[in-house]
Amino acid sequence: MLHDLRKIDWIKWKQASESERTQAVKELQDMLTAWEDVEENREGSHAFYSIMGHKADFILMILRPTIQEVSDIELRFNKSKFAEFTIPSYSYVSVVELSKYMAKEGENPEDNPGVRARLKPRLPKWEHICFYPMDKRREGNDNWYMLPMDERRQLMYEHSFTGRKYAGKVKQIITGSMGLDDWEWSVTLFAKDMLQIKKLIYEMRFDVVSARYGEFGSFYVGNLLTIDDIPDYFAV
Amino acid sequence: MLHDLRKIDWIKWKQASESERTQAVKELQDMLTAWEDVEENREGSHAFYSIMGHKADFILMILRPTIQEVSDIELRFNKSKFAEFTIPSYSYVSVVELSKYMAKEGENPEDNPGVRARLKPRLPKWEHICFYPMDKRREGNDNWYMLPMDERRQLMYEHSFTGRKYAGKVKQIITGSMGLDDWEWSVTLFAKDMLQIKKLIYEMRFDVVSARYGEFGSFYVGNLLTIDDIPDYFAV
Amino acid sequence: MLHDLRKIDWIKWKQASESERTQAVKELQDMLTAWEDVEENREGSHAFYSIMGHKADFILMILRPTIQEVSDIELRFNKSKFAEFTIPSYSYVSVVELSKYMAKEGENPEDNPGVRARLKPRLPKWEHICFYPMDKRREGNDNWYMLPMDERRQLMYEHSFTGRKYAGKVKQIITGSMGLDDWEWSVTLFAKDMLQIKKLIYEMRFDVVSARYGEFGSFYVGNLLTIDDIPDYFAV
Amino acid sequence: MLHDLRKIDWIKWKQASESERTQAVKELQDMLTAWEDVEENREGSHAFYSIMGHKADFILMILRPTIQEVSDIELRFNKSKFAEFTIPSYSYVSVVELSKYMAKEGENPEDNPGVRARLKPRLPKWEHICFYPMDKRREGNDNWYMLPMDERRQLMYEHSFTGRKYAGKVKQIITGSMGLDDWEWSVTLFAKDMLQIKKLIYEMRFDVVSARYGEFGSFYVGNLLTIDDIPDYFAV
Amino acid sequence: MLHDLRKIDWIKWKQASESERTQAVKELQDMLTAWEDVEENREGSHAFYSIMGHKADFILMILRPTIQEVSDIELRFNKSKFAEFTIPSYSYVSVVELSKYMAKEGENPEDNPGVRARLKPRLPKWEHICFYPMDKRREGNDNWYMLPMDERRQLMYEHSFTGRKYAGKVKQIITGSMGLDDWEWSVTLFAKDMLQIKKLIYEMRFDVVSARYGEFGSFYVGNLLTIDDIPDYFAV
Repeated sequence: MLHDLRKIDWIKWKQASESERTQAVKELQDMLTAWEDVEENREGSHAFYSIMGHKADFILMILRPTIQEVSDIELRFNKSKFAEFTIPSYSYVSVVELSKYMAKEGENPEDNPGVRARLKPRLPKWEHICFYPMDKRREGNDNWYMLPMDERRQLMYEHSFTGRKYAGKVKQIITGSMGLDDWEWSVTLFAKDMLQIKKLIYEMRFDVVSARYGEFGSFYVGNLLTIDDIPDYFAV
Repeated sequence: MLHDLRKIDWIKWKQASESERTQAVKELQDMLTAWEDVEENREGSHAFYSIMGHKADFILMILRPTIQEVSDIELRFNKSKFAEFTIPSYSYVSVVELSKYMAKEGENPEDNPGVRARLKPRLPKWEHICFYPMDKRREGNDNWYMLPMDERRQLMYEHSFTGRKYAGKVKQIITGSMGLDDWEWSVTLFAKDMLQIKKLIYEMRFDVVSARYGEFGSFYVGNLLTIDDIPDYFAV
Repeated sequence: MLHDLRKIDWIKWKQASESERTQAVKELQDMLTAWEDVEENREGSHAFYSIMGHKADFILMILRPTIQEVSDIELRFNKSKFAEFTIPSYSYVSVVELSKYMAKEGENPEDNPGVRARLKPRLPKWEHICFYPMDKRREGNDNWYMLPMDERRQLMYEHSFTGRKYAGKVKQIITGSMGLDDWEWSVTLFAKDMLQIKKLIYEMRFDVVSARYGEFGSFYVGNLLTIDDIPDYFAV
Repeated sequence: MLHDLRKIDWIKWKQASESERTQAVKELQDMLTAWEDVEENREGSHAFYSIMGHKADFILMILRPTIQEVSDIELRFNKSKFAEFTIPSYSYVSVVELSKYMAKEGENPEDNPGVRARLKPRLPKWEHICFYPMDKRREGNDNWYMLPMDERRQLMYEHSFTGRKYAGKVKQIITGSMGLDDWEWSVTLFAKDMLQIKKLIYEMRFDVVSARYGEFGSFYVGNLLTIDDIPDYFAV
Repeated sequence: MLHDLRKIDWIKWKQASESERTQAVKELQDMLTAWEDVEENREGSHAFYSIMGHKADFILMILRPTIQEVSDIELRFNKSKFAEFTIPSYSYVSVVELSKYMAKEGENPEDNPGVRARLKPRLPKWEHICFYPMDKRREGNDNWYMLPMDERRQLMYEHSFTGRKYAGKVKQIITGSMGLDDWEWSVTLFAKDMLQIKKLIYEMRFDVVSARYGEFGSFYVGNLLTIDDIPDYFAV
């Protein structure tokens, strides 16, 4: 999976001719439409949201069965007319994974067919998004990787209760990125009401897993941009 | 709420034609006037202050009932003529909240009608502003989130005394941003005398809550810019 | 007080016409001359020094009775012709203050007329400058703000001896910036011999106040630029 | 060895004339062909991979018997037409080395002829790459450099088991960079299946050597770019 | 002393006319020739090396009896034609000093005539350079500045043995920068064989002084550029 966050160069966008802008918007819509077909065929998934604040203007998430396919999409996007009006500000490379701590003892979660299906999720199209990368802490007495497996499993088990209380309100996609990017995991939350995301994160912060062992990167939040929203969003 | 901090590209501003500058200033004044109407109707609030030093030239705070409305204003601002002469330097996404520690035990502060009114504050138009984001520390023996609720409540209670001594001199707006931005809270202080802000922060630094558990981001300070001040401020 | 540090865009400066450069230099000299009048009238003070290395090319310090006056000068400077050839690289907002630890017990230093005079210092015009921001540490067992007042007073008292040994050689201006900028204090040292600054800082580093409790930002050093030096300094 | 990571300036690339792009691509292919000859003659080795995300678009690794030869290649690359469309984003200077902990006691690994051959490796041309720099921690009780040699040897010995399980799946090149670059070592992993890299890093994170003593820089991952892939990769 | 590290803007360099490039190269050679005369007269010293990787393309070290002279050279360099093709990337302000721990007890090393001569070193013209800034750690139980003088002297004494083993292979220039720049010291190593620098740093890392008390900044390495090398180095 690639999280691709970019800023829009509004000044350049306004300086472009009307026909250039029309071409760029159409190109973006065509790409999104093609990706919707892929999603329909269960060969991948994607998400496209605006992002608030100065850190980025939008996020594009691309989920495909192989890293090579994700790479190819990134390359095509970089060569598009639309990309000429964007400035990359952050990105994240990872793969969808399921918690090893949720498995029955002795069972590899990836051997479970239900679980395997969950490894190819369809990203929800809910109104709001929140993306952030995270690490488990390795500092002095707060070293996650020095804890025995049982203690880690117990702490993760308690942590999962907090998440479950928000079922139907917040949907979370966890991806692993050890060896792939600068943090160990990425978390992407989708919600119909942004305040539910805030409440969930607040509540989780008191779980020992977060309180003692969580390290968090930047948080990016924003709103769904559908193919139909795009012309208005970019109209100047 | 969005705190939107930007630099002014003075060189570009001076290179623009007189009529471009006039248009940009008028556009900014029109936006501010429209937001004053919103404020009059108690459907939101805003603040506009110059900022000292190299980190930013001005701050725009936009408070609205929903994140989507704030997003829409940010988008319109980005497309404005005035924005062409600005460079985003920082921003902060958060929502107004009241301290959970001030509630009576067993009471949810948001169930209290008086409290709910305070959740939709009208930002004061006092002479000076100070904005900074902050975290509660989670390090070794100084881990706020591992303290029992009673101890946290007690520490916050003592801390609130320090703030109360400055009633009438410094007005503070606390917003929560867990899951919304890179720090856990933002603090925005308004004062008629900037030295009162400095005194308040100095005194609070010795409260255990700050001394042991406070982590602070950048501080931005500046002065009120009214609609009428704007033409002079931007005259070159 | 504002410390305003900027780089000179030498390439743009050389590309400018002779008359543009002459105008810019004259404007800078006129501003400095006007500020000298203010200084003469004891309504403020300033300093203008070149800075060595890549972090900045010069520092302008502006001291005025109110933050609003400092802001106005920054705005005028930003609009000047000279500023078009500069790139802001750092700045610092603070107010002159005297050590609370030097007061007699029970006495507020600001009630003392001699002390109040020292709150409006005239910045020396010595050959060399050194500016850096600093914090008192709040980490684990090294938490300044958790020490009892008596211990802090005692440590500051010992620290002041080190400074006093350099009387006549190094003149220091301490400004407080809690709530005003990203560090808690700024220190500006003036000396006729730069090595005295280095010796003073080295010696102080072993004082417990610095060794256990000092956190330091970037150090900026440079040489006096008088109004008369300016044409040569900028001649290309 | 030099790891040279760069971004492609796609906007500039698309603005260039067809003949400029053709020249640049040919130049890049000619350099790679010449380096393949060097590799054939066992006088050095190299690798060229695309990189995913915003941190870089490609990585070029150049391995030569002397630092001077590596420097010369970097200089020629900087002067090439192709380089005009690139923006350096990271680099790493290091030399291939073998673990001192793997040697028999009393033996210098570099005295062993088999080992010497391994000091001049031919970089594999496997499908995927992962590059990151790392340090051994020196913090409080987790100070690698204060451990006795025997304990370090034992920990490294256990660590090597984890790596050996991935023999045939992941090939690792360790280079030392103490005194040469900002971290102490660089690790470059090659794999036919990227997930094997992720699994290896995940498993190793629980080895005491990583859990308590490992500090990691940014991770860069990507896919092989052969000479024949290049025209397609750069076609716009 | 000033360490001045810069990148070369190769694109701009190639766009310049042949005559501009010739002028710039000649100007650089003339400056170096003039500095060689200064060195001949024992009134200062300098070094000019290429730097590997993206952090810088070359380093210029300027050693003069006073800070003002160093400043003047920096200013002249900034105004030169050659500097128009460079981008400052790092710099370091410091003064040559001798270890206080090497002195006989009760003796000030600067009172010793032999020592005073060593305070005005002639920088070697060996093939390779390595430059990095460093601090002595002040953290928790690893606080150099809280150690008694005897313990510090003993640790430095042991440390000096490691360095002495490399006599004739690595020549080190230590400069002090407390109060002058962001770190406390700079170390510049010269060697005929770069691997000797790596070996020395590796060995020293296990000395308690480095293992427990050393904090290191970025490392810059490169190769000698003589006046005669310059035309080739810059030929495009």
